[in-house]
Amino acid sequence: MTAPPDPVRLRLRLLFGSDVMLGPGKADLLQQIAATGSISAAGRAMGMSYKRAWSLVEEMNSAFRAPLVLSVRGGASGGGASLSETGEAVLAHYRKVVAIAAAAAEDEIAAIRALLCDIPDGK
Amino acid sequence: MTAPPDPVRLRLRLLFGSDVMLGPGKADLLQQIAATGSISAAGRAMGMSYKRAWSLVEEMNSAFRAPLVLSVRGGASGGGASLSETGEAVLAHYRKVVAIAAAAAEDEIAAIRALLCDIPDGK
Repeated sequence: MTAPPDPVRLRLRLLFGSDVMLGPGKADLLQQIAATGSISAAGRAMGMSYKRAWSLVEEMNSAFRAPLVLSVRGGASGGGASLSETGEAVLAHYRKVVAIAAAAAEDEIAAIRALLCDIPDGK
Repeated sequence: MTAPPDPVRLRLRLLFGSDVMLGPGKADLLQQIAATGSISAAGRAMGMSYKRAWSLVEEMNSAFRAPLVLSVRGGASGGGASLSETGEAVLAHYRKVVAIAAAAAEDEIAAIRALLCDIPDGK
């Protein structure tokens, strides 16, 4: 039996001007906030401190025309967070950028892969 | 007069399995080695220590079936380095991956850009 070849992952960062950067970390954080309804839970899920998660959220919220993350402090549930419409849109666009990029560059990526040492299927 | 909008740059990293990573740093290092004919000069041009540059070269050389960088120690010129055929190929494929990815995802990237605050042309 041959082990299936390791998947090739593509990490993609967009730099807008010299300041705004959007990459896998922020995208995953947005996704975890949507999933957990909480910035702190999202940070925990990513092994990130609360402070770090908040700082990334603030950075994103101030870079875009509308905040990406809406948060409510306090209350019976101890506050919560969700993605705004803009937040949903940015996350969806980012995921599409990665998917489109990976698909379009598939042949070139395979050409690099074929030059690597440990290709299990010998190709 | 309106300043031209900042260009969007795309940084792309390929992860093959859990070990081998190819990104802008290694690609630029290969390019500088080809340009300068020297690993240390290439490292300097990138603000990287000699040790760091060598370590990246060794990492790449052992990950691929053939070394990407060929080096000659000593000699009258104090040694030198060049890209092998495989090195040239890997660098060219990587640059194509980035160019193809940026072109293919252009519309999605523009959609994210349109949601950012400071778009000089107001779009």
